[in-house]
Amino acid sequence: MKLWDKGISIDKKIEQFTVGNDREIDIHIAKYDVIASKAHAKMLQKVGIITVEELVELLGGLKTLEDQIKNGTFVIDPQFEDVHSKIEFELTKSLGEVGKKIHTARSRNDQVLVALHLYYKENLGIVKEKTKAFFDTLLELAETHKDKVLPGYTHLQVAMPSSFGLWFSAYAEQMIDDVYLLNAAIQTVDQNPLGSAAGYGSSFPIDRELTTKEMDFSTLKYNVVAAQMSRGKSERTIAVSLGSLCNTMSRFAMDACLYMSQNFGFISFPDELTTGSSIMPHKKNPDVFELIRGKCNKIQALQSEMVLITNNLPSGYHRDFQLLKENIIAAFEEVKDILDIFNYSMQQIIVKDVDINSDLYKYLFTVDNINTLVVEGQSFREAYQKIGGQVQDGTYVPDTSKHHTHVGSIHNLCLDKIRDKFPD
Amino acid sequence: MKLWDKGISIDKKIEQFTVGNDREIDIHIAKYDVIASKAHAKMLQKVGIITVEELVELLGGLKTLEDQIKNGTFVIDPQFEDVHSKIEFELTKSLGEVGKKIHTARSRNDQVLVALHLYYKENLGIVKEKTKAFFDTLLELAETHKDKVLPGYTHLQVAMPSSFGLWFSAYAEQMIDDVYLLNAAIQTVDQNPLGSAAGYGSSFPIDRELTTKEMDFSTLKYNVVAAQMSRGKSERTIAVSLGSLCNTMSRFAMDACLYMSQNFGFISFPDELTTGSSIMPHKKNPDVFELIRGKCNKIQALQSEMVLITNNLPSGYHRDFQLLKENIIAAFEEVKDILDIFNYSMQQIIVKDVDINSDLYKYLFTVDNINTLVVEGQSFREAYQKIGGQVQDGTYVPDTSKHHTHVGSIHNLCLDKIRDKFPD
Amino acid sequence: MKLWDKGISIDKKIEQFTVGNDREIDIHIAKYDVIASKAHAKMLQKVGIITVEELVELLGGLKTLEDQIKNGTFVIDPQFEDVHSKIEFELTKSLGEVGKKIHTARSRNDQVLVALHLYYKENLGIVKEKTKAFFDTLLELAETHKDKVLPGYTHLQVAMPSSFGLWFSAYAEQMIDDVYLLNAAIQTVDQNPLGSAAGYGSSFPIDRELTTKEMDFSTLKYNVVAAQMSRGKSERTIAVSLGSLCNTMSRFAMDACLYMSQNFGFISFPDELTTGSSIMPHKKNPDVFELIRGKCNKIQALQSEMVLITNNLPSGYHRDFQLLKENIIAAFEEVKDILDIFNYSMQQIIVKDVDINSDLYKYLFTVDNINTLVVEGQSFREAYQKIGGQVQDGTYVPDTSKHHTHVGSIHNLCLDKIRDKFPD
Amino acid sequence: MKLWDKGISIDKKIEQFTVGNDREIDIHIAKYDVIASKAHAKMLQKVGIITVEELVELLGGLKTLEDQIKNGTFVIDPQFEDVHSKIEFELTKSLGEVGKKIHTARSRNDQVLVALHLYYKENLGIVKEKTKAFFDTLLELAETHKDKVLPGYTHLQVAMPSSFGLWFSAYAEQMIDDVYLLNAAIQTVDQNPLGSAAGYGSSFPIDRELTTKEMDFSTLKYNVVAAQMSRGKSERTIAVSLGSLCNTMSRFAMDACLYMSQNFGFISFPDELTTGSSIMPHKKNPDVFELIRGKCNKIQALQSEMVLITNNLPSGYHRDFQLLKENIIAAFEEVKDILDIFNYSMQQIIVKDVDINSDLYKYLFTVDNINTLVVEGQSFREAYQKIGGQVQDGTYVPDTSKHHTHVGSIHNLCLDKIRDKFPD
Repeated sequence: MKLWDKGISIDKKIEQFTVGNDREIDIHIAKYDVIASKAHAKMLQKVGIITVEELVELLGGLKTLEDQIKNGTFVIDPQFEDVHSKIEFELTKSLGEVGKKIHTARSRNDQVLVALHLYYKENLGIVKEKTKAFFDTLLELAETHKDKVLPGYTHLQVAMPSSFGLWFSAYAEQMIDDVYLLNAAIQTVDQNPLGSAAGYGSSFPIDRELTTKEMDFSTLKYNVVAAQMSRGKSERTIAVSLGSLCNTMSRFAMDACLYMSQNFGFISFPDELTTGSSIMPHKKNPDVFELIRGKCNKIQALQSEMVLITNNLPSGYHRDFQLLKENIIAAFEEVKDILDIFNYSMQQIIVKDVDINSDLYKYLFTVDNINTLVVEGQSFREAYQKIGGQVQDGTYVPDTSKHHTHVGSIHNLCLDKIRDKFPD
Repeated sequence: MKLWDKGISIDKKIEQFTVGNDREIDIHIAKYDVIASKAHAKMLQKVGIITVEELVELLGGLKTLEDQIKNGTFVIDPQFEDVHSKIEFELTKSLGEVGKKIHTARSRNDQVLVALHLYYKENLGIVKEKTKAFFDTLLELAETHKDKVLPGYTHLQVAMPSSFGLWFSAYAEQMIDDVYLLNAAIQTVDQNPLGSAAGYGSSFPIDRELTTKEMDFSTLKYNVVAAQMSRGKSERTIAVSLGSLCNTMSRFAMDACLYMSQNFGFISFPDELTTGSSIMPHKKNPDVFELIRGKCNKIQALQSEMVLITNNLPSGYHRDFQLLKENIIAAFEEVKDILDIFNYSMQQIIVKDVDINSDLYKYLFTVDNINTLVVEGQSFREAYQKIGGQVQDGTYVPDTSKHHTHVGSIHNLCLDKIRDKFPD
Repeated sequence: MKLWDKGISIDKKIEQFTVGNDREIDIHIAKYDVIASKAHAKMLQKVGIITVEELVELLGGLKTLEDQIKNGTFVIDPQFEDVHSKIEFELTKSLGEVGKKIHTARSRNDQVLVALHLYYKENLGIVKEKTKAFFDTLLELAETHKDKVLPGYTHLQVAMPSSFGLWFSAYAEQMIDDVYLLNAAIQTVDQNPLGSAAGYGSSFPIDRELTTKEMDFSTLKYNVVAAQMSRGKSERTIAVSLGSLCNTMSRFAMDACLYMSQNFGFISFPDELTTGSSIMPHKKNPDVFELIRGKCNKIQALQSEMVLITNNLPSGYHRDFQLLKENIIAAFEEVKDILDIFNYSMQQIIVKDVDINSDLYKYLFTVDNINTLVVEGQSFREAYQKIGGQVQDGTYVPDTSKHHTHVGSIHNLCLDKIRDKFPD
Repeated sequence: MKLWDKGISIDKKIEQFTVGNDREIDIHIAKYDVIASKAHAKMLQKVGIITVEELVELLGGLKTLEDQIKNGTFVIDPQFEDVHSKIEFELTKSLGEVGKKIHTARSRNDQVLVALHLYYKENLGIVKEKTKAFFDTLLELAETHKDKVLPGYTHLQVAMPSSFGLWFSAYAEQMIDDVYLLNAAIQTVDQNPLGSAAGYGSSFPIDRELTTKEMDFSTLKYNVVAAQMSRGKSERTIAVSLGSLCNTMSRFAMDACLYMSQNFGFISFPDELTTGSSIMPHKKNPDVFELIRGKCNKIQALQSEMVLITNNLPSGYHRDFQLLKENIIAAFEEVKDILDIFNYSMQQIIVKDVDINSDLYKYLFTVDNINTLVVEGQSFREAYQKIGGQVQDGTYVPDTSKHHTHVGSIHNLCLDKIRDKFPD
């Protein structure tokens, strides 16, 4: 039966099907496999499974690989199905039998698991740092533009006075909630799974507390079955935490696109940050912000993928788990890019002067007018009716003099307090 | 044009469409509106907007409502669109003009927001407590059944020895990761949004720090625009944290259903917990666990709903947000039920003696056999080939004597360490 | 151990947990259980399992229930777990032993399945009809307003001239794609599953072709295991087809909200269709359209729920499937409402005159200017640069005279051709 | 401010951010851009925008590219942002000014749109064909193994007799429902969007019916705004139709994994299709089926991505839409692979003889026993109690003699009728 049309043999096709894109993805976790292998080797020596001499050889071999990875000369050739086979092969090629000994008392399962935990932990930290950098930019922008009025909308209808100070710092403060989730993700992956082997532990007398310390994990995932079950759970938690941050950025990008529309015209960006049209000579399109929005939305969808892959599967390893890492690693790389680009772009923002006296915006101040009457002694209902009547018969005159005093309001942004809230 | 066939007038239909199920849902948040109203009233007095006498009247009126809510006599009649209108009406009916004054310097938006935050915070705490109770049950079961062997599977294939001790405590330790997310959700909602009014603050000189303290929030959502934007963000974070817990429970329920199958036969439950069939007299079906699994899966889908409702919407309030609360509140009620039922059911579990000498399970110990040879001095490769040969030619004899010593392994469960990991 | 705090006994709580909301939901499928029961009874007589006299009695009993359902006097009392138990009870109460005979050769599984298929089929038909009614409204509005110019946007930037004719009929034509999916859903449920019993058929000599004809199904789901597996598949397909329609409506509602914003001001609606604000006397908010958008977005999330409940479950019935119907039935009821409300509301639309000579919109015509030059013999590149130069130096004068001739363009809407495309 | 650490200039990074992976993805749509360009050129000549000589030149240039694409020598070099720029460049390089003329009266928007529609249409057809091939395999397997008994489960509990014939053909018949959705997707993309330009049509007198005929589309997407809006809608519909097929395959793969477990032992596969373990010498793992399941689950998640990218965006093109194609094209390539691999693997299945007399399975026949008594004149209730009693006191003897006669049952599979149902 002729299934494959391009002369590829069936076995090749099946092999390709099972390997998938592991080689491309695994380049991101090579560094972490080496870190974990070093810790594992040190532990094997401490508990007497290998000798000091063997340890020295292994650490030397791993150092060579570490350098290659750092220099960008490390390549996962097509004959290897993943980074772990590659590293194993290289160690054995250079060290002989000793190279093989590093695999004593571990399985491919916990080897992958621990490398991913290390990658996840480091990258969650980087995402958090970049979030902090963007957060700082937004607070600076808020400070700079705190006196610039921006119409505030509810239901997309002109509602009450807002300001660029409020707008920028709103997104900054919103990111704090995203960091709560990033921190939960960090806690989730900051637990050493090494030693769980194929998910049921090892009969070798390994010392998991030692590897925990070596790799700088805060704690262990003690139970070996739980360690194995963290496949899928970690990825799900990462997906929701990155997704939450992306949700904030996506909505911020939406505001940017809307405010750049001629019908709002509240902000603009230098030409380098906008894109022209192949047929319309007048266009300056906000492609960067649309792509930030779109990419953030893609990442928000990732959580569904993580859940669907693992849902309703009984406990114990399943090969399906191999598929979890690809899009999570891609998402990390993308989120780091987005944070850089968004931060950089926002620093170029041109905040326009909104003509608050335009007919479009004159009703922004009705609530302030009412409050003035209330303070003067009228009941809210009377005041509301009075100002409403003025709006109706065209005699309404905006009261733009009101100074808002309360914490977090347009004239009292509390930027320092917001800065202090950013979680460790 | 005749659109509605049952004699219902158009306006009625539109009104019904906009009100939705608010009345049914809002009964859950009545208590929290009263708490927030009391705090708001006290603050209004402190800043001089109402008098001490007016405050006393308002607190009296609110106390009456509080008692009705506690007694179950509080009803949101059909003429009110939501609980907030109802409370406003009752206060005005009993107190006259004073009743209306409580709405000074707040808007329906922040009134709903703060009541929801209080409801969310309290219920996240309850979910966490019930999770802790279930966690404790699982650790007790692990202790009780720590010596009972359970076949361990990978790829659904018989793999290595596990135990009921490992199985129960694996799910317990897994729940700790869920609690990290619950805690992130608690941090997210534990910020006072009151005072944000319609999302742009108030020109009254309100004291938001005072209400924060009165309602026992840990901090404020300072920025009023950010406070408004927490609509959707809170619900999303709650959905992912409940969803994470439900993911753990759903997989646990899947294990239970599988292990109850005749083909596994590892566990059973008393008849009261199983269900018969209308046509098959021999059936004892695990309906409770299937419904736990299914309900948990439904709740996992909730996150998509929360994201879709708010995604790509520009900042500022939109009426769409009204739709967020319904299924989140329903999910809270459901999760609390599931935790109770699951905890109760698991306490009835009958752990069977698995015949480890059955042909089905004889290869569970091949890795232990290999490790014995390795300890005796053979290389892993030699040992692997030797045992593999025995499996092939039928001479393999399981070595069931190995004692696993490492932390988190079958013979060293570290239940106390797992217990200590449960986060505050 | 005291698990339940309100004095409810444990069994009660477990029973409540397993019954769920079935009673409330099942009222929607009562009618269809009666239809299917009648067909089943007729078949049982034809194949000799019951007598003609027994059939007459059963049909009489079912007629009584049918009338109650029609009159709204049919109630599923709390002692019944679902509509099927209730109907069984009523028949047995009134007919004695004969009442029980109707359950020969069927199981609760296929009884529920066939009632749901009938409900789904009828309601998909109703949704399709209401979609057609809305489609017709939109084409009429397109005809009415075909000469009214509307700025066309790309990237939310002013781009090229559009019209209300194009806008209305675009959403009409878009709905045709949704109807392709509705038709796929209709095909999916228009297959008789009755006779599959518990998912493995019956040893009674039943005549499934006869019941197929009686219930007016187009074909059978032949394979009894496949019939059982349609649980979840049908609901998933319905969710995606309703979701697709809701996606169109949600985006249409988004346009409506945006165009009602003061910054666009392209459309408005009578006061009865807008909502005021409790604190801003000038507000006329588009709540109806926001709720349409939000409810449509909720329904779009439904597909995730259907998938998560059934995903990765082995074949054969699982109790989890009981949970599929609740939100699908709720979605049907909601979609029908939305279609009515949206159709009704759009008929009230007030299309404004957009001042095309405003500075905001003057570049709408640059492409038309370029094309004029191209037709006069210049290369596109030259023409693009010339007009681009005019835009830059402020000498650009819009050419609003161009008549678009091609099929589907602003001046050649092809409404009849679109009308003809609506699928049967 | 130093944002990028590796010496890459900012503009480069922003450019890379906006281009994304377009070059890699676009290789899949090169062929279709050429087809559409040929049709567009012919039309331009027919309506007098280019001359016959120019047409001949353009068709020649396009033929050269077509050959390169066929031979695999066509490459999208890094200086081009996508395939469309590349083709434009090549035509202009070889033909000079004439090369540029092909872009008269079209925009990048409808150029991408029509190429995608052509790619989608062809690939949906291929997926449908491969589904048919798998369907045929399953019906053959059903015929071959129709007499082999398989225990039927409900609630994962042993329930009633099933057969491999029922099992194989159940999944075949289930796929028919998936094809209904594939057909809906085909209808959705089988509409010519060319001529919609940037989403508002063209002032050139183009002939869209001619290009429709040239490209063999069944109809046009008439309305140019609707044509533009099909971005996202097509991808969403494709995602749900591929997702539906994947749902069927995922559940089938789950059955395969479960039935390969030692605890079921119903099927096995040759060693070439199973995978060993690095530490357990006895393992033969079903990795192929687990990866089919996992990949199918990933594809089921795609719908969320498509919805999230487009949801709540107002009408008109947004750059976000560029992100839709990547994972849809990847999914097409993956689904075609999965269908091939699954079809090929299933042909190697080894169906085992299930020992129906084992204690595990003895209650499979209780319903048949009851039905025998009913046919002999007892009421169902009496018969149910009698057999139930025998089960309880251990005197039950299975009645394995029952022949099921009805359409779609274990002994009357109706494979030809199922074959006939496969839709055109």
